[in-house]
Amino acid sequence: MFRHQKELQFEVKVDRPDPMLARQIQEVLGGQFGEMTVMMQYLFQGFNCRGEEKYKDMLMDIGTEEIGHVEMLCSLISQLLDGASPEDQAEAAKDPTLAAIMGGINPQHLIVSGTGALPTNSVGTPWNSGYIVASGNLLADMRANLHAESQGRLQVTRLYHMTKDEGVRATFRKMIARDRYHQYQWMAAIEELEQKNGVVVPSSFPHEAEEESQVEAYRFWNLSEGTASAEGQWATGSAQDGSGDFEYVAEPTARGNIPYHKKPSDSLHHDLNNNKVKSSF
Amino acid sequence: MFRHQKELQFEVKVDRPDPMLARQIQEVLGGQFGEMTVMMQYLFQGFNCRGEEKYKDMLMDIGTEEIGHVEMLCSLISQLLDGASPEDQAEAAKDPTLAAIMGGINPQHLIVSGTGALPTNSVGTPWNSGYIVASGNLLADMRANLHAESQGRLQVTRLYHMTKDEGVRATFRKMIARDRYHQYQWMAAIEELEQKNGVVVPSSFPHEAEEESQVEAYRFWNLSEGTASAEGQWATGSAQDGSGDFEYVAEPTARGNIPYHKKPSDSLHHDLNNNKVKSSF
Amino acid sequence: MFRHQKELQFEVKVDRPDPMLARQIQEVLGGQFGEMTVMMQYLFQGFNCRGEEKYKDMLMDIGTEEIGHVEMLCSLISQLLDGASPEDQAEAAKDPTLAAIMGGINPQHLIVSGTGALPTNSVGTPWNSGYIVASGNLLADMRANLHAESQGRLQVTRLYHMTKDEGVRATFRKMIARDRYHQYQWMAAIEELEQKNGVVVPSSFPHEAEEESQVEAYRFWNLSEGTASAEGQWATGSAQDGSGDFEYVAEPTARGNIPYHKKPSDSLHHDLNNNKVKSSF
Amino acid sequence: MFRHQKELQFEVKVDRPDPMLARQIQEVLGGQFGEMTVMMQYLFQGFNCRGEEKYKDMLMDIGTEEIGHVEMLCSLISQLLDGASPEDQAEAAKDPTLAAIMGGINPQHLIVSGTGALPTNSVGTPWNSGYIVASGNLLADMRANLHAESQGRLQVTRLYHMTKDEGVRATFRKMIARDRYHQYQWMAAIEELEQKNGVVVPSSFPHEAEEESQVEAYRFWNLSEGTASAEGQWATGSAQDGSGDFEYVAEPTARGNIPYHKKPSDSLHHDLNNNKVKSSF
Amino acid sequence: MFRHQKELQFEVKVDRPDPMLARQIQEVLGGQFGEMTVMMQYLFQGFNCRGEEKYKDMLMDIGTEEIGHVEMLCSLISQLLDGASPEDQAEAAKDPTLAAIMGGINPQHLIVSGTGALPTNSVGTPWNSGYIVASGNLLADMRANLHAESQGRLQVTRLYHMTKDEGVRATFRKMIARDRYHQYQWMAAIEELEQKNGVVVPSSFPHEAEEESQVEAYRFWNLSEGTASAEGQWATGSAQDGSGDFEYVAEPTARGNIPYHKKPSDSLHHDLNNNKVKSSF
Amino acid sequence: MFRHQKELQFEVKVDRPDPMLARQIQEVLGGQFGEMTVMMQYLFQGFNCRGEEKYKDMLMDIGTEEIGHVEMLCSLISQLLDGASPEDQAEAAKDPTLAAIMGGINPQHLIVSGTGALPTNSVGTPWNSGYIVASGNLLADMRANLHAESQGRLQVTRLYHMTKDEGVRATFRKMIARDRYHQYQWMAAIEELEQKNGVVVPSSFPHEAEEESQVEAYRFWNLSEGTASAEGQWATGSAQDGSGDFEYVAEPTARGNIPYHKKPSDSLHHDLNNNKVKSSF
Repeated sequence: MFRHQKELQFEVKVDRPDPMLARQIQEVLGGQFGEMTVMMQYLFQGFNCRGEEKYKDMLMDIGTEEIGHVEMLCSLISQLLDGASPEDQAEAAKDPTLAAIMGGINPQHLIVSGTGALPTNSVGTPWNSGYIVASGNLLADMRANLHAESQGRLQVTRLYHMTKDEGVRATFRKMIARDRYHQYQWMAAIEELEQKNGVVVPSSFPHEAEEESQVEAYRFWNLSEGTASAEGQWATGSAQDGSGDFEYVAEPTARGNIPYHKKPSDSLHHDLNNNKVKSSF
Repeated sequence: MFRHQKELQFEVKVDRPDPMLARQIQEVLGGQFGEMTVMMQYLFQGFNCRGEEKYKDMLMDIGTEEIGHVEMLCSLISQLLDGASPEDQAEAAKDPTLAAIMGGINPQHLIVSGTGALPTNSVGTPWNSGYIVASGNLLADMRANLHAESQGRLQVTRLYHMTKDEGVRATFRKMIARDRYHQYQWMAAIEELEQKNGVVVPSSFPHEAEEESQVEAYRFWNLSEGTASAEGQWATGSAQDGSGDFEYVAEPTARGNIPYHKKPSDSLHHDLNNNKVKSSF
Repeated sequence: MFRHQKELQFEVKVDRPDPMLARQIQEVLGGQFGEMTVMMQYLFQGFNCRGEEKYKDMLMDIGTEEIGHVEMLCSLISQLLDGASPEDQAEAAKDPTLAAIMGGINPQHLIVSGTGALPTNSVGTPWNSGYIVASGNLLADMRANLHAESQGRLQVTRLYHMTKDEGVRATFRKMIARDRYHQYQWMAAIEELEQKNGVVVPSSFPHEAEEESQVEAYRFWNLSEGTASAEGQWATGSAQDGSGDFEYVAEPTARGNIPYHKKPSDSLHHDLNNNKVKSSF
Repeated sequence: MFRHQKELQFEVKVDRPDPMLARQIQEVLGGQFGEMTVMMQYLFQGFNCRGEEKYKDMLMDIGTEEIGHVEMLCSLISQLLDGASPEDQAEAAKDPTLAAIMGGINPQHLIVSGTGALPTNSVGTPWNSGYIVASGNLLADMRANLHAESQGRLQVTRLYHMTKDEGVRATFRKMIARDRYHQYQWMAAIEELEQKNGVVVPSSFPHEAEEESQVEAYRFWNLSEGTASAEGQWATGSAQDGSGDFEYVAEPTARGNIPYHKKPSDSLHHDLNNNKVKSSF
Repeated sequence: MFRHQKELQFEVKVDRPDPMLARQIQEVLGGQFGEMTVMMQYLFQGFNCRGEEKYKDMLMDIGTEEIGHVEMLCSLISQLLDGASPEDQAEAAKDPTLAAIMGGINPQHLIVSGTGALPTNSVGTPWNSGYIVASGNLLADMRANLHAESQGRLQVTRLYHMTKDEGVRATFRKMIARDRYHQYQWMAAIEELEQKNGVVVPSSFPHEAEEESQVEAYRFWNLSEGTASAEGQWATGSAQDGSGDFEYVAEPTARGNIPYHKKPSDSLHHDLNNNKVKSSF
Repeated sequence: MFRHQKELQFEVKVDRPDPMLARQIQEVLGGQFGEMTVMMQYLFQGFNCRGEEKYKDMLMDIGTEEIGHVEMLCSLISQLLDGASPEDQAEAAKDPTLAAIMGGINPQHLIVSGTGALPTNSVGTPWNSGYIVASGNLLADMRANLHAESQGRLQVTRLYHMTKDEGVRATFRKMIARDRYHQYQWMAAIEELEQKNGVVVPSSFPHEAEEESQVEAYRFWNLSEGTASAEGQWATGSAQDGSGDFEYVAEPTARGNIPYHKKPSDSLHHDLNNNKVKSSF
């Protein structure tokens, strides 16, 4: 069960309204790696967690924090839209310069939400749960989380340079700092889990089961011409778990045959030959 | 530019058709972490790459390999659907047991694709590019890739136990081995990049810029009651880059104020007071 | 079966082309509460109707009217796009001011539809049938309809203030008047149905069946700090059907336990312990 | 800012696992009118609220409650999936009857979530924010909320009859009771707002502004043959706000003309005449 | 403006309910090539038409017919669902065979629509307007229409063999006949337009403008090994408009260079070198 | 299996960066008829092909070519974004004219991809596989392909006029030439298939099976008032396969009855009468 307190986790106060910035910031609210994504991802991972209590508790801590980040961004966007109005739009139409600025505004911020934040990204695409994952495998999911926080922080730092508004920047600094901590946090959890189970997900599928395929677990297939890719750590040395040595296959050849698929049933009407199918079929 | 050879990368040959399994395997073809996802993700990262040649080359190598994996899975699914036909469905309707099995088939495998593979997941949702990312930041993207390979391998091992078909399992073993290598590969690339730039994405936003927010980059906020989360490595010790020490905030308090939003323009018709807006407005 | 006559339901004639306005008006054609939504919602409710003839007939009357509203808006948008051309875009690129205006145009209005209306909203998201409902329960669905007409009229009045074009405004006035009638209409239908069956949907699930849960049907849970919410009519007095009295629970406590979920099967590879799963599993 | 406590709002405990029921219940978690929808809708309305404090507070109270309902349903679904495993699936394949049952399971409950709840509906479609609305107009939004609770309660009562599991039914009874209260709640809020501003949304667009269109605000257009629709309250009597009397137009005629659209620019390549466009154009 | 009459275009009457068939038939109602698609595609093409009256009139004729086909399929599906009920589902749970059949039912047919048709396809994906096109170029669009009728008729013939229900088959026969006519119709329109303007879309972009690229308009690039593709009519002889002769390029080589992309701005945080970006940037 | 070479199929080199054009060009990369669509459509048709080798080989040839077209467009877009930066955006905010131009940029080109191409269209909607088809019926699918190349070439010619950049135009000329060839190619394949099997898809469903419906395969139903549609070739003369003569039905009447749907089960809670359903039901 959850409870809400009125104060925001961190102060959110903009220097001046800026509807174009409001549109851009939607990316980190309702985009692929926005706050809605991490909020829903951590909550689902926490709700579904069948592992140790400390992981479940940690997921619930951070999932709950992220609901508050969605709240903060909604306030940030609402403040940036303060005072925007439909008649501004009509007024602007008379002046090419102003009209132009209007082109940079998300029209839904007026028409749909009436100057409120939207559950969409910076180009107006609705958030969808295809952005999130809760697989039950903790290592897999914490790699998802580290990835999400990396992309999320990257996007906020890019937005940081897109405004000179010190109020907005102060909010971003808090988010950038929190996203830094969250990267540390998932790295720490990942390290713990890798030490326990090994670095490959899932760890419980035994290497030996891969049998004759075993050798393919160490091979780099050079399928794009040029061998610059031979210069990376992935091409030489040993696997991270010491189970084998990497092999750079500079001139790979296919191991399979040309696939063969049977002629389909006549009633699928591929029309491969000129027979009519009886309609009583 | 790309070229195609007829042989598959690895042999794909099923013991016997199994339409229900065909439906399930769609998940690792057209699902969130299926082969379409890694193929498109690596290709876009490679096409857009503005970094060192070795990374671009490597991305193109593996992106090109994944097109071949999509090809393999399409063949696998086609073979599992061999011989399925609409009249089976009608025939089955007479026998409750058979009718029931039909319930487990994806009807689109008959109606839409005529026993071919579909660009959708195991519940029929179309693949969409909201599953992929190419941000330009190599470390962020390689974390995305490690994550995708972790989820992908996890799903194939789960599918492995869902069939006794040795032909299918042999194909899965190849995929499981390749996904193991691909995890090693991204880990190696990540290690290289972290050593060069540091572990936090992006590395180029300076810590000191976070100013007064700096302290928040090391704090765990305990927002779910209970303190089991204090037992993880994320709660004690130093950050991975040694820049500070973690702090477990057991009883966190809000740092912000209650947000305030201005009354909106009358022409947005929030109807907050009982005035009529003049239509000439 | 349907028939079409050439004349529009109401006159549609714009004073002058305005591509930016064309983009904005897409919201009330192909958006969440646009004319495509009410058209498809009423038609599906009508087609599926298993209730009294007068409701089915009424749904078909208004559903058929709404097809004509889609037609009117397509004409409105086409007229606003009259004369827009690709070379305008190239010409504008030379002049920052003009280039800017182009930024406010939906590029699909040139590239995709060649100055025709699009089945998308004001930010270009395709219409989808997740916007509509036809549940079979008339009261539930007519509440959906009242809601849709309320949002729809709200959006048109906001758009009204975004233009000074008297031709466009005249069309909007017709739509605003029709949306007013449609609100009356659904309110009348709702009142009729509530009088017959009661105000709660569905009415046929008996209160007594809720047993020990009965009390929860009258309680307000104060889960956000502060008690301003105690001041509303929902917090005091009797339920609308007189079946009980509201109770404001100022300090609610959880009634459930901490949920417990079993350890999953090893073959799901949650990796909760360090065992390998036999691949022959 | 939000906080989480471990106990569920209400007890959730199933009598026995039932994966097919788990799939069905996904509808009221991640479907169009599931708990994710009301949770996100109320939170966004609350976050964006620019009206009186009592409404904002109330929205935050109920939005916060709904996060807990998502939590409850995740636990319910997890428990129904307890013990489901990939090898069940393979085992079942040998026995037509068992295989059949497997057909009724959502394959993603094994492959993707490893027996956890999914953020999708009963047919596996991901949740998306096109399901929700926060318009800023309180009356419009509370009609949305009443509608959502009506559909939601309807769906739970239908699910109620789809199982004999007393544990599941007990949970449903709590939800059915809460959804009853929430209907009362929104009705009370609606009544309050209607008394203040009038029944038409938005109330601030003046009737007289509709000018010559005024008459259309009271007319029922009989566009589907037959006049059964004349029997409803919407066809006779006065509008709910007493502003006019309804008129049943039994044989409506079009008021507009045949629309005319100009020939488009040649560079749009409609190919309406046989001229080539100069490529230097 | 549109009008509705109560009778269906053709008789729809099923022999007996069959919920599993109802689910399958959803494909040709709400799927990629279902009746909703052709209805909306023809209506948008007609509404937006800026060409000769006879095309606009024809598009409106057939678009209006298709609304009636949606109506027919809704009735067909409703009748196939007659008598289905939630308690059947619970009853079935006791008997593995019956439970299994339930697995083949679309759960939304009970929970969401209460035995009505849904605006979704056979796997439950909502219809969306990304399925349709109205480009303004008549030849391009009529090729779209011929294609849609081809896929649509193919799907109905496949469904035809999936049932023995003579009532359903009689309805399908009407649809199969109409889809045959509609293919003739679009072929006739295409032939007319090709004779007038030429076979290439758009015809108004002059061949000579392609300049040095001209030769590429006749070349087949053999990029998949093997030369079976040389045996088709596309590899030898003249182009359909006689403007040139086909050339089979058996061993094609790249004509472009290796692409080069500049290093991005530091403030995009690609982290390509180890510099920190100043936060005041 | 696939291989990649570094050189692009054709040269791609822009005269100067132009972020607004980059946004527009996204339509032909990630839109409904962009290169991603034809690439995935041809590959899936090729992978699934169960027909003659020459068709499969041809599909693989062209599918492989299209991967290279996606590569070319990604390079084109990257070059147009060269030098765009977040601080440009902030700088621009000071100057209304510049700010306006920013409004025409896709914000995701900065925030999400860091000046790389996106897998989305010109308004930012993600690509999804609902755009493509691989039905197994070669004639149906090649009509899909001819259609896609027609729309695709149309869109590129429109874009051609939207820029004066000669580098971009040179790339477009190559694409326009290739799209011309691809139209010839599909026309040739269609002609071959029509000669073999007949012009109606599918050809294998026998005309006589349509029985009493036979006559409907030649009738034009005039459902939109006015008879301009009688002037087309579809209204007079013989069907393309000579199987019958067209008939223009100027005043069509419905052939079916008014549909009747049974009262639903009480447990679906349609609330059609005032009975309570027993909760033990």
